[in-house]
Amino acid sequence: MRIYDERNVSMMMDLYEMTMANGYYLLENQDTHVAFDVFYRRNPDSAGFAIFTGLEQIVEYLEGLHFDPEDIDYFRSLGQFDESFLSYLADFCFSGDLYAFPEGTIMYPNEPVITVVAPLVEAQLIETELLTQINHQSLIATKARRIVRSAEGRPVSDFGARRAHNNDAAIYGARAAYIGGVAATATVSSGQHFGIPVSGTMAHSWVMFYKNELESFRKFASIYPDNCILLVDTYDVLHQGLPNAIQVFTEMRDKGIASKNYGIRIDSGDLAYLTARSRKMLDEAGFTDAKIIISNSLDEYTIRSILDQGGQVDAFGVGERLITSRSEPVFGAVYKLCAVEEDGQMIPRIKLSETPEKITNPGLKDVYRIYDADGHAVADLITRQGEELDLSSRYDFVDPIKPWKRRAFENCTAKKLQVKIIEAGKRTSQLPSAKEIASYVDRQLREEIWDTEQRFENPHIHYLDMSPAYYEMKMDMLETNR
Amino acid sequence: MRIYDERNVSMMMDLYEMTMANGYYLLENQDTHVAFDVFYRRNPDSAGFAIFTGLEQIVEYLEGLHFDPEDIDYFRSLGQFDESFLSYLADFCFSGDLYAFPEGTIMYPNEPVITVVAPLVEAQLIETELLTQINHQSLIATKARRIVRSAEGRPVSDFGARRAHNNDAAIYGARAAYIGGVAATATVSSGQHFGIPVSGTMAHSWVMFYKNELESFRKFASIYPDNCILLVDTYDVLHQGLPNAIQVFTEMRDKGIASKNYGIRIDSGDLAYLTARSRKMLDEAGFTDAKIIISNSLDEYTIRSILDQGGQVDAFGVGERLITSRSEPVFGAVYKLCAVEEDGQMIPRIKLSETPEKITNPGLKDVYRIYDADGHAVADLITRQGEELDLSSRYDFVDPIKPWKRRAFENCTAKKLQVKIIEAGKRTSQLPSAKEIASYVDRQLREEIWDTEQRFENPHIHYLDMSPAYYEMKMDMLETNR
Repeated sequence: MRIYDERNVSMMMDLYEMTMANGYYLLENQDTHVAFDVFYRRNPDSAGFAIFTGLEQIVEYLEGLHFDPEDIDYFRSLGQFDESFLSYLADFCFSGDLYAFPEGTIMYPNEPVITVVAPLVEAQLIETELLTQINHQSLIATKARRIVRSAEGRPVSDFGARRAHNNDAAIYGARAAYIGGVAATATVSSGQHFGIPVSGTMAHSWVMFYKNELESFRKFASIYPDNCILLVDTYDVLHQGLPNAIQVFTEMRDKGIASKNYGIRIDSGDLAYLTARSRKMLDEAGFTDAKIIISNSLDEYTIRSILDQGGQVDAFGVGERLITSRSEPVFGAVYKLCAVEEDGQMIPRIKLSETPEKITNPGLKDVYRIYDADGHAVADLITRQGEELDLSSRYDFVDPIKPWKRRAFENCTAKKLQVKIIEAGKRTSQLPSAKEIASYVDRQLREEIWDTEQRFENPHIHYLDMSPAYYEMKMDMLETNR
Repeated sequence: MRIYDERNVSMMMDLYEMTMANGYYLLENQDTHVAFDVFYRRNPDSAGFAIFTGLEQIVEYLEGLHFDPEDIDYFRSLGQFDESFLSYLADFCFSGDLYAFPEGTIMYPNEPVITVVAPLVEAQLIETELLTQINHQSLIATKARRIVRSAEGRPVSDFGARRAHNNDAAIYGARAAYIGGVAATATVSSGQHFGIPVSGTMAHSWVMFYKNELESFRKFASIYPDNCILLVDTYDVLHQGLPNAIQVFTEMRDKGIASKNYGIRIDSGDLAYLTARSRKMLDEAGFTDAKIIISNSLDEYTIRSILDQGGQVDAFGVGERLITSRSEPVFGAVYKLCAVEEDGQMIPRIKLSETPEKITNPGLKDVYRIYDADGHAVADLITRQGEELDLSSRYDFVDPIKPWKRRAFENCTAKKLQVKIIEAGKRTSQLPSAKEIASYVDRQLREEIWDTEQRFENPHIHYLDMSPAYYEMKMDMLETNR
């Protein structure tokens, strides 16, 4: 779990954070403690949930946060910042607290997945990097899960690096895809730095270099008898590539070479038709254990369609549509001020909006996931921070969408979702590996999250309820600020 | 033009490049010279052109390409590679030649924008990083140009970092957007490393921190009298934010403060309506030079619509839809083998396909842009490498889409598009700054490229023609390989 590199990403921020920070400093508000929540408003692809991903990189960023002399020189060159503020930046570090859902937690709109409690300037300057990590990695992990689900148990590999939005998108994207359930990646850096299984055999260039396709396959088989996946679509799948592959597999069999892993990959054409024909030809030649792998513009919809049409596929390589989340390339988590210290108390703040969905949830709060007796997650619940939650008997809550209806949890248990990750700038707990996070995602989706929330079309919408005390506080604030 | 960081991105590759390289090495083909072309097949957003962007990062990558001992240890841990090959990697560097369009050149489908001529293993291992840089940056530069065009001369700023696909996507994305014509970025790292103008004033958190909106505006004006853009939509634009802003501007005027740059930003709601009303209120209060800036899910379509509806806007901040190229987040440049050395000659190679568009253009070639007497680019032309191109009289070419039609250039001039950037692993020329590249893009689009190619809907399709000799060679290869 070594970090991907030793870069200083402290300058990954929007300029307005500095403009505001300089202002707060000059107005002597820089040390006032505040709280910011990270949350998002809707699931990409109209899905029922998303996967909280990117926390490890945030923790590493906060631990390393500092400004080098050349950074301060750069700020000075902009001519907008006071020298006293620039001096203050020379010793800057993050001294606040970070609370977050464990990485890989299934998350839903409008609940605070991260809460930062820190002096104002510190809390303000970290906005961009927190959002960029959460937005990117959660987007890809969530998309990956959709694709993995469509593959119905067959392994999916990430082949996306070349179409990713630059290096980090490929490298952290592969990490996120693995957390979302992808079995392997082609991206070497990600394998190296996050311990993700890597896979890859040959490209069209191998076949073209040797000119004679049969010869190119023989040569590959001679080097990789135990990982002999032959790309059969450089010239003509059914009339040339597949017969040549079968020829090579036959020669291997005749020589007594029992391959551990062999088969074909098809990267173009009508994949449902070609795989069905290929399966038949391979089986008739006695190669019933030869694998058929497909790639080329795959996503959850094309995979489902290929399988529905009788495609015979053992594994999928998915590229551009996973690594860019092509169907919806934006994940919209935001970072909103929710409380400001006044006389030692954290006083709630609220942002209003013409659109009710854009009104923020004010104040410090706790978020619980509520489980029924069978361990299924029935709802999430927001309470005021520190409010006692007693589920030993019937618990009346408020559904903020239909506050007039009387609702209650019975025979339920609750788990607090946010845990303290950083206290006074220092990490307080070990972070899990990518593999452990992937297992956690998988377990939640198998055991806790209703299948109806995991549907592609019209999924069930997870409830986000409120304790009566929290709801009353929010309504009071709306009343006061309207 | 300092590089963004000192990272070793040599491990940014797909594993199959290593699998093939190990095979080539063991088969003693590693030093055979080959040529690969980078080209793409269609313009994003059904547009008429794209902007070639990302070359500087490729040159830096090729110059720094090497494998550290821990990289080799990682490869060893995978158990697929021969020790002799791993030893060879310890001294690995790029010793080949790179030819490319100058960065910022307007490009079209199916022409080789980069050609690599290098020993086989070197040429193979660099595939991913070349494609990732070109695909990402060309995507964003091209999208940025569309948005800039829709703004009809008003400045556009990039506000996208928080929704970018991780750090590099934000940082190189801002570079690409600037090359595409964006005036400034909010992303500090990009400003610092590529000399791009940065902009930014306040977020909703500034207004919320001070609770009283008027007080928060006064405080901001006291710190930034000359860069006083007030965000007026935290509570209610027309009934609170704008009156408060006008109050502060009036107080400044009364104190004799003549602001160089002041105005409002609106980040939500019906932007056409709100800006028109705001303009009227500002003008009536005597602030005719107060700027109105808008943001929130803008792209070329929303901007055009807002302007069509009479929106009164001085500048635009564009975020997620630019930095992710949301309408089409994939740029599909590919890297295809086009020639292999045999007995000292570069012999063409071709990849066939069921789909005619996917058939590659074989062999080493030259690409020319053909200009009419007024300096407009009328077509691009592919010839065999070194073929003499004499336009002093009528020149007959082949239109590969309609080869039966007789076509000719008359009174035209030609410019060879590829230039040698790296020779035997060493950079042969100075690369331009981001600012110079942006000017070059702008000049081409104003002076050379027909407006009909720049339309959003149904643009004119630029011709890619062939010399008779090149066309004949390609047809011969198709004949032989069919």
